[in-house]
Amino acid sequence: MKTVEAKLKAIMIADNPETFVTRRITEVELEFGGIQGDRHFGITFPSDSRQPMYPRGTEILNRRQLTIVSEEDLALIAKDLSVAQILPEWLGANLLLEGAPELTKLLMGSRFLFPDGTGLICMGENKPCTLPGEIIQQHYPEHPNLAAAFVKAGYKRRGIVCAVERPGTIQAGDVVRILVNNLENPMQ
Amino acid sequence: MKTVEAKLKAIMIADNPETFVTRRITEVELEFGGIQGDRHFGITFPSDSRQPMYPRGTEILNRRQLTIVSEEDLALIAKDLSVAQILPEWLGANLLLEGAPELTKLLMGSRFLFPDGTGLICMGENKPCTLPGEIIQQHYPEHPNLAAAFVKAGYKRRGIVCAVERPGTIQAGDVVRILVNNLENPMQ
Repeated sequence: MKTVEAKLKAIMIADNPETFVTRRITEVELEFGGIQGDRHFGITFPSDSRQPMYPRGTEILNRRQLTIVSEEDLALIAKDLSVAQILPEWLGANLLLEGAPELTKLLMGSRFLFPDGTGLICMGENKPCTLPGEIIQQHYPEHPNLAAAFVKAGYKRRGIVCAVERPGTIQAGDVVRILVNNLENPMQ
Repeated sequence: MKTVEAKLKAIMIADNPETFVTRRITEVELEFGGIQGDRHFGITFPSDSRQPMYPRGTEILNRRQLTIVSEEDLALIAKDLSVAQILPEWLGANLLLEGAPELTKLLMGSRFLFPDGTGLICMGENKPCTLPGEIIQQHYPEHPNLAAAFVKAGYKRRGIVCAVERPGTIQAGDVVRILVNNLENPMQ
């Protein structure tokens, strides 16, 4: 099993009920269910358009407690869109990593371990939708069609969703150990 | 996304505290956390030797609520071990499917949908260990070394572990729709 070390550059919370855009905080307690006060918090969660196999609003297991993006992926998206930068807040990300260029390609079951023992488990890729693209568009009004272009530029770069596997407290600046799952010899 | 239909041949519960071996029941209510009264029930669960990244006994998210095996996989194991049959109870399985020969190769994130709307989500392969092999050995005392041979024969055939994504009631004989996850266009 491959292990990668990355740096937790920023922690963000979506605690404004009017938007999915996040704001930075310096540390946070992760509980089973995610971040208390964040709009995605919960052991369970109402299904939405991402789970068309269930009637919309069905209470299902919440695999989308936290979203993680990497600086490297955001830089590639910015380059493709010809804009100066893409902030993780605009995508509603909760964690920003530096040194994890392959983040979005991580298989489900990969783990993120923090210095105090906190553990997250990758629950899959976060597919790009137009909502963050609309926020990006607001920041670059002179660029046409950024909302639609984001979906394409964000393909396999928009980060992942995670669930809390082991609760704890994480801080900006933490070194994060990523245990990379693989198909040949999957982690349990 | 590929969809496969299989048949739920048997439901089993591990409700004897002295053994992981399961016994057949005709229907069961699946809650968040799995099957009440089964030894693997729980939204969270103490970590064991399968999660060496955490101190043993740490309370972690329970991805091993239910185990599923397929008749096709069990037949291949029996053939490799030169025994007449391998019963799913001996492996501590909770569900036995017929018509899912590729069951153990399913990616995490694959889904199992039942007639009443119950949903399970695949949380990974169940790696073979020697404990079920010891039970198999007890049933075939004339065959030497079955415990160790089972680990090899069970490779990529020992089934998967699941979590309950949407609660409900399932019955032996149910037709199960399997939504097969894939790496190119993963389900959310």
